[in-house]
Amino acid sequence: MSVKYVYMFPEGDGSMRNLLGGKGANLCEMTRLGLPVPAGFTVTTEACTLYNSSGKTLSEEIKGQVNDAMVKLEAATGKKFGDKLNPLLVSVRSGARASMPGMMDTVLNLGINDDVAESIAAKTNNPRFAYDSYRRFIMMFGDVVMDVSKAKFERVLDDYKEKKGYRSDVDLTVDDLKIIVEQFKSIYKEAKGQPFPTEAKEQLFEAISAVFRSWDNPRAFIYRRMNDIPYDWGTAVNVQSMVFGNMGDTSGTGVVFTRNAATGEKAIYGEYMINAQGEDVVAGVRTPKPFAELKNDMPQVYEEYMGYAEKLEKHYKDMQDMEITIEEGKLYVLQTRNGKRTAHAALKVAVDMVGEGLITRQEAILKVDPKQLDQLLHPAFDAKALKAASAIGSALPASPGAACGKVYFSAEDVKAAVERGEKTVLVRLETSPEDIEGMFLAQGILTVRGGMTSHAAVVARGMGRCCVSGCEAIKINEGAKYFELGGKRVSEGDYISLDGSTGKIYGEKISTAESEISGNFATFMAWADAERKLKVRANADTPQDAAKAIEFGAEGIGLTRTEHMFFDENRIPKMRKMILSDSAQERRAALNELLPFQKADFVGIYEVMGDRPVTIRLLDPPLHEFLPTQDADFAALAKDMGKPVEELKLKAKNLHELNPMMGHRGCRLAVSYPEIAEMQTKAILEAAIEVKKSKGYDIVPEIMVPLVGDVKEFRFVKDIVDSTAKEIFKNSGVEIKYLVGTMIEIPRACLTADAIAKDAEFFSFGTNDLTQMAYGLSRDDAGKILADYIDKNIYEGDPTAKLDREGVGALMKIAVEKGSAARPGIKLGICGEHGGDPYSIEFCAQIGLQYVSCSPFRVPIARLAAAQAALR
Amino acid sequence: MSVKYVYMFPEGDGSMRNLLGGKGANLCEMTRLGLPVPAGFTVTTEACTLYNSSGKTLSEEIKGQVNDAMVKLEAATGKKFGDKLNPLLVSVRSGARASMPGMMDTVLNLGINDDVAESIAAKTNNPRFAYDSYRRFIMMFGDVVMDVSKAKFERVLDDYKEKKGYRSDVDLTVDDLKIIVEQFKSIYKEAKGQPFPTEAKEQLFEAISAVFRSWDNPRAFIYRRMNDIPYDWGTAVNVQSMVFGNMGDTSGTGVVFTRNAATGEKAIYGEYMINAQGEDVVAGVRTPKPFAELKNDMPQVYEEYMGYAEKLEKHYKDMQDMEITIEEGKLYVLQTRNGKRTAHAALKVAVDMVGEGLITRQEAILKVDPKQLDQLLHPAFDAKALKAASAIGSALPASPGAACGKVYFSAEDVKAAVERGEKTVLVRLETSPEDIEGMFLAQGILTVRGGMTSHAAVVARGMGRCCVSGCEAIKINEGAKYFELGGKRVSEGDYISLDGSTGKIYGEKISTAESEISGNFATFMAWADAERKLKVRANADTPQDAAKAIEFGAEGIGLTRTEHMFFDENRIPKMRKMILSDSAQERRAALNELLPFQKADFVGIYEVMGDRPVTIRLLDPPLHEFLPTQDADFAALAKDMGKPVEELKLKAKNLHELNPMMGHRGCRLAVSYPEIAEMQTKAILEAAIEVKKSKGYDIVPEIMVPLVGDVKEFRFVKDIVDSTAKEIFKNSGVEIKYLVGTMIEIPRACLTADAIAKDAEFFSFGTNDLTQMAYGLSRDDAGKILADYIDKNIYEGDPTAKLDREGVGALMKIAVEKGSAARPGIKLGICGEHGGDPYSIEFCAQIGLQYVSCSPFRVPIARLAAAQAALR
Repeated sequence: MSVKYVYMFPEGDGSMRNLLGGKGANLCEMTRLGLPVPAGFTVTTEACTLYNSSGKTLSEEIKGQVNDAMVKLEAATGKKFGDKLNPLLVSVRSGARASMPGMMDTVLNLGINDDVAESIAAKTNNPRFAYDSYRRFIMMFGDVVMDVSKAKFERVLDDYKEKKGYRSDVDLTVDDLKIIVEQFKSIYKEAKGQPFPTEAKEQLFEAISAVFRSWDNPRAFIYRRMNDIPYDWGTAVNVQSMVFGNMGDTSGTGVVFTRNAATGEKAIYGEYMINAQGEDVVAGVRTPKPFAELKNDMPQVYEEYMGYAEKLEKHYKDMQDMEITIEEGKLYVLQTRNGKRTAHAALKVAVDMVGEGLITRQEAILKVDPKQLDQLLHPAFDAKALKAASAIGSALPASPGAACGKVYFSAEDVKAAVERGEKTVLVRLETSPEDIEGMFLAQGILTVRGGMTSHAAVVARGMGRCCVSGCEAIKINEGAKYFELGGKRVSEGDYISLDGSTGKIYGEKISTAESEISGNFATFMAWADAERKLKVRANADTPQDAAKAIEFGAEGIGLTRTEHMFFDENRIPKMRKMILSDSAQERRAALNELLPFQKADFVGIYEVMGDRPVTIRLLDPPLHEFLPTQDADFAALAKDMGKPVEELKLKAKNLHELNPMMGHRGCRLAVSYPEIAEMQTKAILEAAIEVKKSKGYDIVPEIMVPLVGDVKEFRFVKDIVDSTAKEIFKNSGVEIKYLVGTMIEIPRACLTADAIAKDAEFFSFGTNDLTQMAYGLSRDDAGKILADYIDKNIYEGDPTAKLDREGVGALMKIAVEKGSAARPGIKLGICGEHGGDPYSIEFCAQIGLQYVSCSPFRVPIARLAAAQAALR
Repeated sequence: MSVKYVYMFPEGDGSMRNLLGGKGANLCEMTRLGLPVPAGFTVTTEACTLYNSSGKTLSEEIKGQVNDAMVKLEAATGKKFGDKLNPLLVSVRSGARASMPGMMDTVLNLGINDDVAESIAAKTNNPRFAYDSYRRFIMMFGDVVMDVSKAKFERVLDDYKEKKGYRSDVDLTVDDLKIIVEQFKSIYKEAKGQPFPTEAKEQLFEAISAVFRSWDNPRAFIYRRMNDIPYDWGTAVNVQSMVFGNMGDTSGTGVVFTRNAATGEKAIYGEYMINAQGEDVVAGVRTPKPFAELKNDMPQVYEEYMGYAEKLEKHYKDMQDMEITIEEGKLYVLQTRNGKRTAHAALKVAVDMVGEGLITRQEAILKVDPKQLDQLLHPAFDAKALKAASAIGSALPASPGAACGKVYFSAEDVKAAVERGEKTVLVRLETSPEDIEGMFLAQGILTVRGGMTSHAAVVARGMGRCCVSGCEAIKINEGAKYFELGGKRVSEGDYISLDGSTGKIYGEKISTAESEISGNFATFMAWADAERKLKVRANADTPQDAAKAIEFGAEGIGLTRTEHMFFDENRIPKMRKMILSDSAQERRAALNELLPFQKADFVGIYEVMGDRPVTIRLLDPPLHEFLPTQDADFAALAKDMGKPVEELKLKAKNLHELNPMMGHRGCRLAVSYPEIAEMQTKAILEAAIEVKKSKGYDIVPEIMVPLVGDVKEFRFVKDIVDSTAKEIFKNSGVEIKYLVGTMIEIPRACLTADAIAKDAEFFSFGTNDLTQMAYGLSRDDAGKILADYIDKNIYEGDPTAKLDREGVGALMKIAVEKGSAARPGIKLGICGEHGGDPYSIEFCAQIGLQYVSCSPFRVPIARLAAAQAALR
């Protein structure tokens, strides 16, 4: 039996991706559904493998099957390939299993020669179109198929235009184009040593071979290596008859959505243009008409289309975005795909389709991209204004939303400007905890350094503030208060706009609008909540954050960072005093001053959260983050402490670390200064007792020890917590339940999780740090590195944004297995940034975590992602 | 059947550690060997468990068995417990399986009361001794056994001395002591509400109970928690009859080695003192006599001792360090243990004992501590001078040897001083690559910051230079050129001495002497080489290092760091030019200037190494390490490059990273700047071709890609190497073999080692970085953290010095398993600092590595450790 290398579209279907490639399988599927797809066939990936393994020649077997298919194609179209009177033109496109850059893409209008061109000119009554297509085909075929340098063709064209004094291609007349066609043929002949092939079949076999060869070119080779695509997959080739929307007033072209992509309303929505091709619509030479008018222009075609639209929606169970062409009154569907839509539309379509009985609630849940929900929760640019703007640069989309305001280069300047009533954008080399107030007051934040989990990114997401980070292309001069990007100098007070969802930076004012949450949101999220198994908590440091979190549906707090509480201007001097103390005694005195503040914070949070669980992390950052950088602050501190300024500066200098991320922080602080953990335990438990008394809430604080790498350091800190608790209970006469657990964020903690779980009552994965340590990559320094890595196809994206399942995930699995073995049923959660990322949440569900915790603004995303994970 | 809770020494043996504790088992063993150990018995650990689980009371069963044992003890000694005429006194000591701080240690002279004291006074003819013992016993019993505050006794003693105008305890007369004994009894009575127990049995049961209770005290509890010792192990109690060396001229005490501990010579070596107790020897009130003189003083005792010495050497197959007491002409052996000895002695004893047929070569190999070999390779302090000195502080023993010189605070100052003919010690906050020349010229290096694998430590070990690192207690003022430590201010030009083997710092001049290698060394090392399975390579960056490595027995180079080559003053300007280039083209031009230097380096190394394997690591450190810090250097560079100073400074500033250890370094440099890897590949391969031509050596360079965390980045760099190689082979017409592998030093590399091994031809574990990342602990900032951790019993030591088998080791095992599965027989080695540490080497052997690589000066240690690993 001979192998079947060629499938007519009606012979294949959507499931045959491996053999026919993605594009081929999709064309077959539409054909099978009975849609008027221009006829064609697919040459299989197996033919590609055979071609490349047999000296790069098309076997007679394949050629024969292609010839047979062409005969069928001619029969189907009633046209003849290479014929003068009724010529069949085809497109030739590659199509692998997955779309793959670097490979030959498309050759259109294949089958043209002098006679055919003349015939098309006559038939379309548009000789300019015919000869323009012809010269384009020669260039495309020469360049793409036969490796004749494109530059050679372009030089001829440019010289010709210069000679004639033309300013653009549009000035070329039919006669000009005829001359150029001849010149192009000469170039081809000179380069290849033989005339341009006028024989259609020859053109076709060359084009098919070229697609197969392109599977083997260096760019494709590198891409496959980088993406683990086996060489022997091969690519398929799709040969399809051309149809033309510009064959007169009974022809046309259109782009149509089966529902309104902006609102989700169930009504056909799109545009069409008579006597035009797809590119004319894009080029905007004429204004297209609303699709509804086709009902008047060509009622039959309109009715036919409406039938297909309904059919496709039912088949794909989703709103479709379709490309159609009408050739002399006959409708063709060139493409259909699930339509892109706004978040509002996505929810409405999903809820409506359930109402229509088209899909189940579960299917509806799976239709909405969780990340899209961000749009509902953050301001967005005015769509028209955005269209008119062009970006001066782009960087990491660190926190979603749109922001527009005047640029300032320091938190103080932002504050002053906001007091004057201005809207501002804070631009910094990198942010530090001292900038937090400025970040809160600004519309958005732009940083030069730092990845998706840099300080700026994490804090901005927590606040729901728009942020674009790690724009290494910026040349910033904070002293002189300007920066340069994309050839533009932006000075203090100039307007810029940031798109935190795409990472784009605009050097101009673009108006923004607040988004609103519709009733569909509540309906849809309730469906999602009914399906999910993972609990969703929020990371929240203040009662305001906590309230926001509950509003968005959080079921508890998975991470309260106690350090952010100390940057308030009333507290930071006391914190600094504590840090620069000479003895445990002095430190204890300073801590006693901080205790009431810290306790009040927790009281506030508990009162908002009620009986919901609250996880509080003990002090984590290196102490030098709290220290002054300005002389004036040192002077004030010295006066307050009654110590010489120089002594304090020296102490501060000695606290400096070369790699603070791997330095004196986390539980290491509690080991060196047990009195800090003591004070924090007091604040956590005394606050809980107070709220229990005043409100009757049964609060079970979950005290989390950060940066544990060895069970012994955990024990050391747990002993401090337990003995402090014992004393508090004795003094107050009230005993409450509390848990002591640990953040799993150090690789060694995963590897020794069995030992740690013997003492720790819960694990919460801190995948920000775990990712940093597993990769040995500092999130604050990752900007340039990631840019190079993504540019060179080494990483797909920022591993701190999307959980790395192979490496970091492997560590998490080890920790889950060892931890659960040592303490069956141990409480397992995640509170790193990945807790709000759908891909990461799916993995968390797979390995058996019980909850995820993320910034309040990501809670809805997490709820939906958790539901999808449960359904998959 | 009743349980046996008490064992007379002859009933037990050395194997019964779990039941009798370490001390008890050892006393039994000596007794069984027929040595005259003072008679006694052990109360078992099971009795302890019973005591603590039954309301802290001694059961009648136990008491009964103790009473029976006392009867046997009286029979054995011919003395009677609590008797006036011939009193038996005993010591009571705790003894768990492993020695454990925090537990009750020793009560001596138990059994004294008024009558017994009087009797001892008469018998010893030394009433002062009798009453001094008595008052000490009351205090010890009161404090240790009965929890009466020691301070109370001391206050009485101090008041008494003040009243009498005495300056020290020695001034107390017998009458004084009798009064104090009475006062002590009153204190006891007042505190406990009952008189001091004069009944010997009562004293004994209280003491045994106290030992058992001390198993349960907080300090012991914390210690066990920190050291994973189960509570139910319990402790044993040893009750042993006292013997006295101060009972007259036929009594005495001595400390004797069976061979010379300094030279290893086979001759008895020690001291003794007539009519004295052990503490008199220690206190140095009289000068002891050489042990040989005992032959004249007490020939019979001497002969008897010689018999025991030989017997013990044969039994333990090692040189013994024995403590003896002679009581009225009768010899007692109180203790024996393997004697501590110098490295010279250790080798001589081992080689001699093989010659004597006492042990096999294999046993000899296992007898020598590999770490001791360091003594043979580095200068040492003059022993007498060292004894007279006292340290002003101590820190990490970062690189062994002794150093003495004048203090300087910069590499330049060291250089100038050495040119003046001075010996120097370089003191720095922390060292950087710019200090290398100064480090080489100095006798030793002292740093304030940094752990066992900080820059200073690693470089110093590589050079064989003494180094003490991470002395956080130092207050340094580099500007004013002085530092303070242990209350002493040391200024530039003052002498200090460093002991790199203990970490001690002396604020004075202590003379040093070079060590020499004896013939025994070669004999012994040859035996070791015959046993080991692991190959031993060295880390070497220069031909000089390489030659040293071969001299010490290295079989190849496991790590050549290419970056150290660029700090030479002729090269660093070119390196800086390369780094501050604006384009790949400019960078390539600067790299072309560096190429000849780098190539010459490799030629030099290859010529020394011949056909031995050489692993060369591509550029690793962050580029800013190479940049100038001084204005003058910037100015020179700006002139050279024809660029404004300010522009270069801004570029340099932008290269600064917050966490350089996890920043733009390792293979990330090659990803951003492929031209660097290209140049290095050229240098490596062209040098190999050159030496192949000139010397005929078949060099197979092993090109090592650092800091790989993902197979794709490895592939990216391997592609650069392979394509560069292809071009070189084409141009030169010579093709040579080479390997491309990777350093495994990022946790993620271990977790994805299967993917990496598909492309990498070898793995070399970089356990310095792997340890840092696994712990999330920066070696440069670890000083203070480790000090606190070790102080609080959380870590036993610095994990960068001794491989952490649970965490880092688990990662290594994963990498070995996954790597070997993907590429059977893959070449596996280690080139981190652990490659020279015996404990770590044993682990490397266990998990199946093929070689270890360490600094040249550690090669002999590694050879011996590898042999021991093979034998165990």
